[in-house]
Amino acid sequence: MQPETIAAPATPPGYGGVSIIRISGPLSKKIATLVSNTKNLENRKATLLPIYNQSRQKIDTCLVTYFKAPASYTGEDVLEISCHGSPAITELILDTVLQSGAKIAQPGEFTKRAFLNGKLDLLQAESVGALIQAKSKSAIRMNNRVLKGDLSKKLLSIRESLKDTLATIEFEFDISEDESQLSLLHKALFKKIEKNTLVLKDLLLSYDEGRIYNYGAKVVICGRPNVGKSTLLNTLIGKERAITSQSPGTTRDTIDSNIILSGIPITITDTAGIRSNTGPIETEGIKKGRTEIDLADLIVFVFTENHQVVDFIKDKTNIIRVFNKNDILKKPSINMPFVSISAKQKTGISTLKKNIISQLMPKNRSESGVHLTSKRQKDAVLKCVECLNRAFSLMNSPRPELEIIALELKDGITHLDELLGKTSTDDILNKLFSTFCVGK
Amino acid sequence: MQPETIAAPATPPGYGGVSIIRISGPLSKKIATLVSNTKNLENRKATLLPIYNQSRQKIDTCLVTYFKAPASYTGEDVLEISCHGSPAITELILDTVLQSGAKIAQPGEFTKRAFLNGKLDLLQAESVGALIQAKSKSAIRMNNRVLKGDLSKKLLSIRESLKDTLATIEFEFDISEDESQLSLLHKALFKKIEKNTLVLKDLLLSYDEGRIYNYGAKVVICGRPNVGKSTLLNTLIGKERAITSQSPGTTRDTIDSNIILSGIPITITDTAGIRSNTGPIETEGIKKGRTEIDLADLIVFVFTENHQVVDFIKDKTNIIRVFNKNDILKKPSINMPFVSISAKQKTGISTLKKNIISQLMPKNRSESGVHLTSKRQKDAVLKCVECLNRAFSLMNSPRPELEIIALELKDGITHLDELLGKTSTDDILNKLFSTFCVGK
Repeated sequence: MQPETIAAPATPPGYGGVSIIRISGPLSKKIATLVSNTKNLENRKATLLPIYNQSRQKIDTCLVTYFKAPASYTGEDVLEISCHGSPAITELILDTVLQSGAKIAQPGEFTKRAFLNGKLDLLQAESVGALIQAKSKSAIRMNNRVLKGDLSKKLLSIRESLKDTLATIEFEFDISEDESQLSLLHKALFKKIEKNTLVLKDLLLSYDEGRIYNYGAKVVICGRPNVGKSTLLNTLIGKERAITSQSPGTTRDTIDSNIILSGIPITITDTAGIRSNTGPIETEGIKKGRTEIDLADLIVFVFTENHQVVDFIKDKTNIIRVFNKNDILKKPSINMPFVSISAKQKTGISTLKKNIISQLMPKNRSESGVHLTSKRQKDAVLKCVECLNRAFSLMNSPRPELEIIALELKDGITHLDELLGKTSTDDILNKLFSTFCVGK
Repeated sequence: MQPETIAAPATPPGYGGVSIIRISGPLSKKIATLVSNTKNLENRKATLLPIYNQSRQKIDTCLVTYFKAPASYTGEDVLEISCHGSPAITELILDTVLQSGAKIAQPGEFTKRAFLNGKLDLLQAESVGALIQAKSKSAIRMNNRVLKGDLSKKLLSIRESLKDTLATIEFEFDISEDESQLSLLHKALFKKIEKNTLVLKDLLLSYDEGRIYNYGAKVVICGRPNVGKSTLLNTLIGKERAITSQSPGTTRDTIDSNIILSGIPITITDTAGIRSNTGPIETEGIKKGRTEIDLADLIVFVFTENHQVVDFIKDKTNIIRVFNKNDILKKPSINMPFVSISAKQKTGISTLKKNIISQLMPKNRSESGVHLTSKRQKDAVLKCVECLNRAFSLMNSPRPELEIIALELKDGITHLDELLGKTSTDDILNKLFSTFCVGK
């Protein structure tokens, strides 16, 4: 059965110079003829054409580009209609395209087709979604590396090595009867499994780093009134004004600002609006502050005097204590590490930033140079490692049962195959691509 | 002096499948070589290329299309880089392009260059901005007609006719000495000026229509509690759910919904959240309601009983009175026109919609088939009409002073020239294009 032809806006929604409607599938060229009245679209040649609706009224004059299969993003015939960047025009053209036989594309459906047509493996497809959401250079570089296939290559080489090991177990043991030869083989297998396990374990470490580059971290500034929380916030975001935006927080008493520190996209929540309790009864403000603090990846606690440590942050470990106003106040003598700054004079700020980064970055770093970038990837690698661990202990037993070891290795390989999309159920694909934006 | 090379994102900001960075000017091709390492870009051929930053790190793999001058949007060499639809990637590529010698484009600067290079006249350039903002099919059609040049043609033909008239005044009167010949000429001039004035006056009528199609109208639903305001709102927007969006209103007590009726984009403000006064003191809610009503292009006043007419809408003329719940209540006997509906049973709604449209549309409609779409256009036509009116009265005097009539005609022509952009100061151009979005 021929695949259906799909269509969707490919550019972000809104007003701009240009919007693009993307079409992929066997009907692409026929739709081009229907909407533009033009038959001979040259491959990959951007052509200025009037686009008509089904009643032959002109909607807009558009730049139309046809990409002949298989040399296109999806591997199918693709048509891109680049119209004026107006939501109304985009909608009218899309309507006409749908009436001409296309169906509306699901989120990520173009990339899913690219995967199904062998243009990308599943890891690469996944990195397309992450690349679009990337908020810093580091995140872009990381996802580009996956898109280029570096992670796939690494995992494919482990997969090959495990397949070799499996072949050895299934065949070599059968035909080798010499005891010393068997012992050598045994040792070699042992080593191979151990080495692959170590590589995968190191790769697992990359996940936390990958996650923080891709999804960022939430930092909450808290402290008593008048300790200089807002000044600190302004000082922190001030230098990066160009990439800073302020938006109303989840509660009306907090303000979220976005900055990028060492490639990590950070949302700083200022709890300055939260009044602390002035009486014995816990106020609504304190409750809100506590919620923010519970959600934080890192708490920046600002104080100016010794006694200000608040009860409910006492036991937190994801905390940096910051002594502010060191230009006018005496250094406190508390028994805890703290950073000494003056938010107003902008001193001590780079030390504070370094502290924030080092607290947010995972303690154990991967040496693999590539990153796992999704939970799906981490879970699959973890399952593979578990199989290898079991195979490893079985090898250690006095009389290893080769059939069971072989089964564990097969399972491990299956997890890698799922990861690479060599075997993947519709469920996995649908879940993975549903997080994409429409039009990709 | 060579023009500078400009660059900007051409697609709306945000996340999507694809974003485009557009570059225009003499450096376009050189920049393409710098960022992609590729020398031979074929004209208009979409080519997949890696894009590098100045440290030769790959940012993204992009579809790059080069448009050789003069066959491009701006009439200059143009480069379009189509990258993954990520704000961070778009920014990185734009940065690299700027570091390679381009400067950031001002709003509308691409279209301004198209105008300066003779690709569009000023009316057409203006319609590009309006087209992007267009919210309905009618608005798109209207602006497309201007973009196609229909309005320009009409004004150019008036301009030619006025130039002929001027030539006649300046030369024919000099050489014709026969009294009866002069009288004939006089009559002919009279007619010509009168005819052109009428055409321009008719065109002026099109402005209000053009304005309402382009900028829409604000309709406020008001009335006592429990007369069915929210039900009416839901019934009005219900049928057009696909193009309906609800957003928080300007005050937290009102909700704005957007619908399109007969091509007019309408924002309906529901004042349902505003509680009316239950005591003698005017409440905050009533004040808010009054502000909304003062801002409204049209008030839809809903009532279920005779006595419910509120003081402050009594004298309004931009009002439709709506008797609701006609399925369960007796028709009221008031001395004013009203529409009888049941919002719940959805009866009388199409009559109400027709009433809304006819109240919003200007009473006197232009017969010109094209619309003036900006205040700048209206003002210029108005000034031209004033010149022609003065010329007309001068012609009527017993001894017409031809030199002064000629001056008035020249002034009239100048206003048309400004309109078409034949003579336009930097000020006019800057003001006009500054309302555009960046990247167009």
